[in-house]
Amino acid sequence: MPAPNKMLPPSVQRLIEAFARLPGIGPKSASRLAYYLLRAPADVSLELADALRDLKSLTRLCSVCYNVTEADPCEICRDPARDHGVICVVEEPLDVAAIERSRSFNGVYHVLHGVISPMNGVGPDELRLRELLTRVEKSRATGRPIREIILATNPTLEGENTASFIHRKLAGDVLRITRLARGLPVGGDLEYADEITLSRALEGRQPL
Amino acid sequence: MPAPNKMLPPSVQRLIEAFARLPGIGPKSASRLAYYLLRAPADVSLELADALRDLKSLTRLCSVCYNVTEADPCEICRDPARDHGVICVVEEPLDVAAIERSRSFNGVYHVLHGVISPMNGVGPDELRLRELLTRVEKSRATGRPIREIILATNPTLEGENTASFIHRKLAGDVLRITRLARGLPVGGDLEYADEITLSRALEGRQPL
Repeated sequence: MPAPNKMLPPSVQRLIEAFARLPGIGPKSASRLAYYLLRAPADVSLELADALRDLKSLTRLCSVCYNVTEADPCEICRDPARDHGVICVVEEPLDVAAIERSRSFNGVYHVLHGVISPMNGVGPDELRLRELLTRVEKSRATGRPIREIILATNPTLEGENTASFIHRKLAGDVLRITRLARGLPVGGDLEYADEITLSRALEGRQPL
Repeated sequence: MPAPNKMLPPSVQRLIEAFARLPGIGPKSASRLAYYLLRAPADVSLELADALRDLKSLTRLCSVCYNVTEADPCEICRDPARDHGVICVVEEPLDVAAIERSRSFNGVYHVLHGVISPMNGVGPDELRLRELLTRVEKSRATGRPIREIILATNPTLEGENTASFIHRKLAGDVLRITRLARGLPVGGDLEYADEITLSRALEGRQPL
């Protein structure tokens, strides 16, 4: 951040700083956004302000799959038409949205909210991993066991390590544990994959 | 905009749409911002929401130079240490901030809030042009006439045309009418010029 410009009105400066705290928005883009909003109709700013205020108050995590939702359990976990015997494990809520867009998956999800990353001080306990194990255990107790777990973490080093870790924890408990096919470019980010690549990766998934 | 994703909670979808209405933020960046804010501490969203709400209620245009300000007249127009006999005419408030950063100008400003652009249906009456002419006239009536007008519109076709138009209107009324030196790359945008280029452009300004 450059030193605050004394010639900017404090309220504009404050908005620029608030924008610049967001990822991918530098001080220059933040200024442009602020001055754009000064000229734009008031409802553009106010609608964004309201949406920001409502975000945290209206959303929560689904108590089954830990995806972001307004109703608990979420729409996918409540849907009787989905196959509740197949769980696709992903890192982030945006990954659920990406896979849903591919229209190639009819099971349910489990959102870890991160990956194991010793570099960043993230161990298994910081993720929704215990919840996944409990979920698998419970499913066996009810007599409708999970048949397959698809480990759809990102094809990065940390994503692979997290998948291996989960594989070791679940081996024996679940009939089939798979990983998305390497249609995904290694080092890439699942969320940016196009629908066709994601479809292929789902179709060609391999047992671990 | 892609079709709204039914799997996204409505409050998240609403925030994504509000972000995507901003210039330079596509649907993908909008999603990333929304999910970033879901994870970030609540005060990141709330601070941005508050700043957005305050923006329009606290700011107005200076009644002298039409720059964005919280106090009227603005800090620059009130400053007795500035040379009120030299007016730098710019397109946008961000251009004032850019020239102030160059620390090469000690006069005052006049913000047009746009350029003459027949393609976009913007004529002289849509800009703060009449206000500039009145300001020059008034200065002569008070016996402290404007000595110089620097036409610092962008070095684009529309910027040049606007400068020529103002030149024709003011010729004879003002001792000296200048244009920023062509240190600026033609077709570029004044607001993105670095401080040194802007300094040079100010120093080398030429009479029209």
